[in-house]
Amino acid sequence: MVVWEQDLNLKDCEHSNEDSLSERTLIIASNRGPFTIENCPDGLEFQRSGGGLVTALTSLARKVDACWIAAADSDADREFSQGDVQFGNDGGIHLRFVSPDPKAYDGYYNVISNPLLWFIQHSLWDFPRAPNIDHSVWQAWNNGYVRVNRIFAEAIVDEVKNSEKEPIVMLQDYHLYLAPLMIREQLKKKRATLTQFIHIPWPGPEDWIMLPQGMRTPILEGLCGLDLLGFQTREDGLNFLRTVESCLPGATVRYNRGQVFYQDRIINVRDFPISIDVKSIKEFAKGADVAEHRRFIERRYGENQLIVRVDRMEPSKNITRGFAAFDEMLNLHPEHLEKVMFLAFLVPSRMEVTEYQSYLDELMAAAGRVNAKYGTSNWEPVRVFVGENYARAIAALQVYDVLLVNSIADGMNLVAKEGPTVNRKDGVLVLSERTGARAQLEDGAIVISPLDVYATAEALHKGLTMQEDDKHQRAQRMKESIEREDIDQWLCHQLDEISRLGL
Amino acid sequence: MVVWEQDLNLKDCEHSNEDSLSERTLIIASNRGPFTIENCPDGLEFQRSGGGLVTALTSLARKVDACWIAAADSDADREFSQGDVQFGNDGGIHLRFVSPDPKAYDGYYNVISNPLLWFIQHSLWDFPRAPNIDHSVWQAWNNGYVRVNRIFAEAIVDEVKNSEKEPIVMLQDYHLYLAPLMIREQLKKKRATLTQFIHIPWPGPEDWIMLPQGMRTPILEGLCGLDLLGFQTREDGLNFLRTVESCLPGATVRYNRGQVFYQDRIINVRDFPISIDVKSIKEFAKGADVAEHRRFIERRYGENQLIVRVDRMEPSKNITRGFAAFDEMLNLHPEHLEKVMFLAFLVPSRMEVTEYQSYLDELMAAAGRVNAKYGTSNWEPVRVFVGENYARAIAALQVYDVLLVNSIADGMNLVAKEGPTVNRKDGVLVLSERTGARAQLEDGAIVISPLDVYATAEALHKGLTMQEDDKHQRAQRMKESIEREDIDQWLCHQLDEISRLGL
Repeated sequence: MVVWEQDLNLKDCEHSNEDSLSERTLIIASNRGPFTIENCPDGLEFQRSGGGLVTALTSLARKVDACWIAAADSDADREFSQGDVQFGNDGGIHLRFVSPDPKAYDGYYNVISNPLLWFIQHSLWDFPRAPNIDHSVWQAWNNGYVRVNRIFAEAIVDEVKNSEKEPIVMLQDYHLYLAPLMIREQLKKKRATLTQFIHIPWPGPEDWIMLPQGMRTPILEGLCGLDLLGFQTREDGLNFLRTVESCLPGATVRYNRGQVFYQDRIINVRDFPISIDVKSIKEFAKGADVAEHRRFIERRYGENQLIVRVDRMEPSKNITRGFAAFDEMLNLHPEHLEKVMFLAFLVPSRMEVTEYQSYLDELMAAAGRVNAKYGTSNWEPVRVFVGENYARAIAALQVYDVLLVNSIADGMNLVAKEGPTVNRKDGVLVLSERTGARAQLEDGAIVISPLDVYATAEALHKGLTMQEDDKHQRAQRMKESIEREDIDQWLCHQLDEISRLGL
Repeated sequence: MVVWEQDLNLKDCEHSNEDSLSERTLIIASNRGPFTIENCPDGLEFQRSGGGLVTALTSLARKVDACWIAAADSDADREFSQGDVQFGNDGGIHLRFVSPDPKAYDGYYNVISNPLLWFIQHSLWDFPRAPNIDHSVWQAWNNGYVRVNRIFAEAIVDEVKNSEKEPIVMLQDYHLYLAPLMIREQLKKKRATLTQFIHIPWPGPEDWIMLPQGMRTPILEGLCGLDLLGFQTREDGLNFLRTVESCLPGATVRYNRGQVFYQDRIINVRDFPISIDVKSIKEFAKGADVAEHRRFIERRYGENQLIVRVDRMEPSKNITRGFAAFDEMLNLHPEHLEKVMFLAFLVPSRMEVTEYQSYLDELMAAAGRVNAKYGTSNWEPVRVFVGENYARAIAALQVYDVLLVNSIADGMNLVAKEGPTVNRKDGVLVLSERTGARAQLEDGAIVISPLDVYATAEALHKGLTMQEDDKHQRAQRMKESIEREDIDQWLCHQLDEISRLGL
């Protein structure tokens, strides 16, 4: 395997950056902002959102000036427009919304970002049938994705120019592939460090070449405006280098240094695996709300061994094949009949995208088929819980005997880290080899190929029948590894790398 | 781009191998044999089949002892079993059939080779929904694909052992990925050169990793039993090296030399782009049968400009998106209404595979939609011809104004070479960038991304409205290039490379 020469996953974050950060400001840009704003009778009300980046930033927000730029998502966002917001007692940030017109936003978000780019990056297209990149898709590209990236870029350039200190710009994810070059071109001599982190998988050139050249070239050129480009795994980073080498004429790459050379510039490519906020989750798991849900699950289903999954309702999560594997397990190992239940906790997601609606229908049908085939008057093998209820999800993760994470592709998959962190039964993790989490957890989990229904069935069976001491050792290894690398480390490693590279 | 150091597409085939070949014998192995055998009242009747390999071999058959091993496909094949067969006056070969039991053959052919491997290698799976690699697929692997590969390997080893001269074994295609290592292990000290040519695309590790480890590792180990492994394009060869590097522990690769090192052995990886038998096709195109079909087409449809496609009825050919592009063209450029027709000549293929049946339904529906939307009492925009009729296909290729080849993925695509060879109108080729033929024809063709319906529509329009001299120059460039590299060169290059490497 080709690897960078440097070991990037520094075991100990140096925190040297806290000093050097006093000379810098942070400008973060992402599609969604760190707060949900609601228009209440007493004025605007701010609710902090849960994402990893918000969490990680909280611990820095007292020490550094930060501005967060996001797309307005409601009238309240547009009314607020921009201003300072506090993270409780932990310091605050300057929050600024951009407001593209609804049609441009729809093209950018509902046509290009999701499903087109998301599906390409998660191997989800049924190529003989979709996507059809027709005139309307090109309009969504030109008048939506390109335009919204330009609006973000202009707001960022504005913040950079108004900053007294030299800013570090941290762009987030696949919504903003074009922005870096646009920023670079407008900045001229004003100095700033441009970085971006891609939260989802980056496939190789074979997948990118399915996009028309008029999209893939601007995407690669856009990202080559950066100084530092971060991915979830080393594989993703190598795939980016290979994509650039195959698809961007004029670029050269050095695999062993993780560098792209393009138009007299160097783009450093690194991996910064994201994680969870271990301390907060453990704290939350002790709460009364979680306990109540746990007691409910135990009272209602506790006579069975429990297979659990917790996922957004989304084709990349491979939910229907999970039910097919459970079916195959009951068929091959009938000793589990009336003794094991499969509880699926599913959060509705992007229901405005057609592909997601039809996937919902399919997965409910798949669950129904298993119940029709094996259910008895006393025992319903599959139970699907639909809705967003974090306390209930954490309660379920506390009591699983086996946790199933069988994604077709997944940038990281944080459920695979939350599960072992809160589980109280030395439960077994069955984990897809196509998740970013696999690298960290493979010596504790049972690793499966996501299309391999038979292997998944056998893995579920193995998990349900594993000896206690084997289970305990595996669970311990995973818990310890997750605690060592939590979300603070993730941001910290990025800032350390910026400082180490002298950017 | 990483390239081999040697230039492998030798401009002139050295024919040095004809002398060195007198010291060798050839053993060819492929799923289908070079003759169709029928049981007639007067005994068995032999009909030579049209494939490129048979054609190429004919010119060598007088000079070298050759044996061809194939799977029996009929009672007549099984009755014949083995014996010598003549290629007209051009010398002959020893033909030998292996006869796996029908259930093993069904698993090997209809479950594993098609669709599983074919679909992986052509980016055709709808991963959220298929394939489901359940227990029955694993049985088809173990009791079908593995077993039939073993039966082939045993027959080949038997021929090698009975050969007085040192044999060159030439395995063909994706049906026989496991055979090389099986042969190698059984040969012991008996010397033979093992080679294989893969006629279909070889994708990168991102696609192969979708296969369970228990399949992909044996496939890669199997091929690493070879001395020389040939692909259609340099990209395919590089993808193989990358796949081995990612997925086969213990193997190392040298990209610049096209070599894999595995278990004290060297596997040489090269590209040998396949072509057509230019002379025979030109001869055939002069025949009365072709002329009659041509006159029929001209009489019936000749008042229109003609867009033509000729394809096996198969999802990798992207037939429905071809109709969608025609629809988009008529919408964006209504001046073509009642003046252009789209004639699609489609050959039924693998109709026993479910995925192919449903694709037939979809493409007929897509054609019907265009006719319903734009058709008038005097003009039906799309006409689909179903059935295998080579003379009719060649006639259609003679008279196209635009030939559409928009495959999602295609090892080479020989229609893209037959078209310019026989066309009489300086017709324009619209060609998918995901065909192996693209490398050779891109400076004559209009190259499109296969998912880009809008670009395909604009390419059809451009082809229909192109100036005569531009059309003529493009057509000439393609004709000349195809004539320079015909099917004889393909076999010739392989034998030269064997001799050059001292294998």
